[in-house]
Amino acid sequence: MYNQLTPEIVAQIKAVSDHVFEGADINPDYAKDEMPIYGTKMPDLAVQPRSTEEVAAVVKICYENNIPVTPRGAGTGLAGGAVPLYGGVLIDISKMNRIVSYDMENFVVNIEAGVLLNDLASDCQSRGMLYPPDPGEKFACVGGNVATNAGGMRAVKYGATRDYVRAMTVVLPTGEITHLGATVSKTSSGYSLLNLMIGSEGTLGIITELTLKIIPAPKKVVSLIIPYKDLDTALSTVPKFKMAHMDPQAIEFMEREIVLASERYVGKAVFPQKLEDTEIGAYLLVTLDGNSEDEVENMIDQAAEIVMEAGAINVLIADTPTRIKDAWAARSSFLEAIMEETKLLDECDVVVPVNKIAEYLAFVNKTGEECGLVIRSFGHAGDGNLHIYQCSNDLSEEEFKERVDKFFEIIYKAATDCGGLVSGEHGIGSGKIKYLVDSVGETNMALMEGIKRVFDPKMILNPGKVCYKL
Amino acid sequence: MYNQLTPEIVAQIKAVSDHVFEGADINPDYAKDEMPIYGTKMPDLAVQPRSTEEVAAVVKICYENNIPVTPRGAGTGLAGGAVPLYGGVLIDISKMNRIVSYDMENFVVNIEAGVLLNDLASDCQSRGMLYPPDPGEKFACVGGNVATNAGGMRAVKYGATRDYVRAMTVVLPTGEITHLGATVSKTSSGYSLLNLMIGSEGTLGIITELTLKIIPAPKKVVSLIIPYKDLDTALSTVPKFKMAHMDPQAIEFMEREIVLASERYVGKAVFPQKLEDTEIGAYLLVTLDGNSEDEVENMIDQAAEIVMEAGAINVLIADTPTRIKDAWAARSSFLEAIMEETKLLDECDVVVPVNKIAEYLAFVNKTGEECGLVIRSFGHAGDGNLHIYQCSNDLSEEEFKERVDKFFEIIYKAATDCGGLVSGEHGIGSGKIKYLVDSVGETNMALMEGIKRVFDPKMILNPGKVCYKL
Repeated sequence: MYNQLTPEIVAQIKAVSDHVFEGADINPDYAKDEMPIYGTKMPDLAVQPRSTEEVAAVVKICYENNIPVTPRGAGTGLAGGAVPLYGGVLIDISKMNRIVSYDMENFVVNIEAGVLLNDLASDCQSRGMLYPPDPGEKFACVGGNVATNAGGMRAVKYGATRDYVRAMTVVLPTGEITHLGATVSKTSSGYSLLNLMIGSEGTLGIITELTLKIIPAPKKVVSLIIPYKDLDTALSTVPKFKMAHMDPQAIEFMEREIVLASERYVGKAVFPQKLEDTEIGAYLLVTLDGNSEDEVENMIDQAAEIVMEAGAINVLIADTPTRIKDAWAARSSFLEAIMEETKLLDECDVVVPVNKIAEYLAFVNKTGEECGLVIRSFGHAGDGNLHIYQCSNDLSEEEFKERVDKFFEIIYKAATDCGGLVSGEHGIGSGKIKYLVDSVGETNMALMEGIKRVFDPKMILNPGKVCYKL
Repeated sequence: MYNQLTPEIVAQIKAVSDHVFEGADINPDYAKDEMPIYGTKMPDLAVQPRSTEEVAAVVKICYENNIPVTPRGAGTGLAGGAVPLYGGVLIDISKMNRIVSYDMENFVVNIEAGVLLNDLASDCQSRGMLYPPDPGEKFACVGGNVATNAGGMRAVKYGATRDYVRAMTVVLPTGEITHLGATVSKTSSGYSLLNLMIGSEGTLGIITELTLKIIPAPKKVVSLIIPYKDLDTALSTVPKFKMAHMDPQAIEFMEREIVLASERYVGKAVFPQKLEDTEIGAYLLVTLDGNSEDEVENMIDQAAEIVMEAGAINVLIADTPTRIKDAWAARSSFLEAIMEETKLLDECDVVVPVNKIAEYLAFVNKTGEECGLVIRSFGHAGDGNLHIYQCSNDLSEEEFKERVDKFFEIIYKAATDCGGLVSGEHGIGSGKIKYLVDSVGETNMALMEGIKRVFDPKMILNPGKVCYKL
């Protein structure tokens, strides 16, 4: 249904872009994202544009000639979203990486979509400001964060990426450039195309420029490592923070096994394994912020009281930047640690109501055993977003995929049944479409497909992702 | 293009609903909302359903028979959104007004969409919780608030209605029932149909049930009346709150004339008109909240310092519920006060970047004079949402409309030019479509119309609103 690139089309593209790669010059990384189990495929041509106009000109040629286009940021996705499944042209926006301007009266920053999260975060920090979204992968492009509505650690208090996007410039599948949103915090001006584009994983348009909300950085931040005898007891603490009018930035949970693996990988042990003769089975990692030493001191006291009453074994305070970094080092390296120790890997990024986490994880572990899979889990206790990894070092790829399929079938259904959704922040990509259909139903899927066709009548943009199987 | 109701269709509707009104039994209020300048028109039939299934059954019959359907809540809209412009069937959801259940582990409340904002607010309050959205009109249905993404006073700190909708049940134009979202705070599970439905003003579906985020109520609230010699000085204070890490619930601005009119209407004078020989030209009304007396005392001191440095004449503190109510009485009655004194009325609900408010309002006032219109403005200084009223007691309706058209043409263009949008919270309805087109452009309008046709192929639901002129 798509056309092949011809020398004539390539010449047209070269006429509008000085940043075209062909044949052996194409970066082999473009064939995959960080979860290659969802397939690898090289594009026929790659472009690394420097401006919205350049993106638009290339997309327009592809649209006219019915050539598939796959947008890509840093390629850190975990659901196959950036893989050019049908070949064609890959557009890598990672060189559109300028932080353009700050507006300190309206509290926004204007950037190109290829800026790395890490660069944006530290640039904001150097100005006393905070860009609150904090996904685990710091070397993703912010455009990719917006395309998947990435959540991250601080979503508990500050919300997900969606909550920080004021406006954007988008290249539509037709090659038209459009602007969505404005530098305002509230609007009721027609259907929210802005919110539709957020989380659409590059299937409705290529996000090229962003206006993002930032806030003055809190003056004082501390992290608490809170060991418990088991996960149930740890998770039962979570709603108590809110009811006590505490609003932690982050509340992460982690089980013993994954912390050990991660500390092996990092080469530094910070989390206690045994305390007062009790084996530690699970931890909460909590970050608090405030605007004075006193305020945060009070919070620590209050938090300690809450968690000790709820059965914590101890509270370890990390109150300097170095100690906070150490406390988070293990958490930040979970994925790398798992990858290091694992040949075959797949992942489920389900989100469930906060009060269902414990029960759901118990079910997941039981199902993993029944399916003959090694399961490693961690996640965001404050918002119910769980990262559940299936690992194998000895199965054949075929056998592994078969077991994972069976496992997914069961646990995604259980997530939906308890009021959850397929993905909390990693997106649907090409890997999770069938579970999305089962979860949201045919009616909603038909609406999504209809919307896709409105934006992209020829279905050239990021085909095979989110809602459309060719 | 639509069919007329026949006795057979009416009989079909009566077979699925016991709450059907015909002829003289139809409530005459159904012909209009609170801004009748956008036209009045009686429906041919009205239904007041008690359940989602009843709504769905009625809509299905209308869809099959090509009969227009107009959803209505409490009818408090200001853009003509609930007027059944093409007759047909009006569905009044105001009797679906049950607060169904609270979930205090996930911090949500489940309600039917016809619950009044006022009832939800006080029910939450009685449980120590807060539903943060606080639009001026307390007797709107929450479903209507969601349909317009209503903002309100507390949007500065807490965000608009959009930020509090976790999930909803919707009757689609075809009569199908679907569920969008879940009781989770973050998700990346396909296109956000939930966010598309929010703010779609009853054109994509009829919202019948809602799961809304609530938060523990702050323990202490105070309001400050801050008089200034003029509006510019008042508005220049606004970004200083945020930079000082203060996060007021509300920052409203008001000019002298409108306060006087409102205090005449309320029959009580609270706002000082002259202080230390200075005529007061404008006020900020600021609300602060916190979780202890001490915390809020500190905030008051800090706020006083900030505003006095920025040129305020004084700071009046309202720190008891009665005083807070008195301080807000004038603000809450602006619209009624204007209506009381005015025969012909129209309104612009534009939103502009916060740092453009002063300049924009000066332009608006000048343009009003040039167009021969009396202008009354007030609004949300913290979020740039301005309510600009055009008033006349002596013009003919024809002449008034002509002048308002000219005025709107100019000021909406100016709003777009300075980075704003057509409506901050009242929506587009039937009254603002042409200004929306001018503001967002033909490309975005075509996408909206395409989306409308995906949801509603026969275009029966709330026709003539938001993006579609028959």
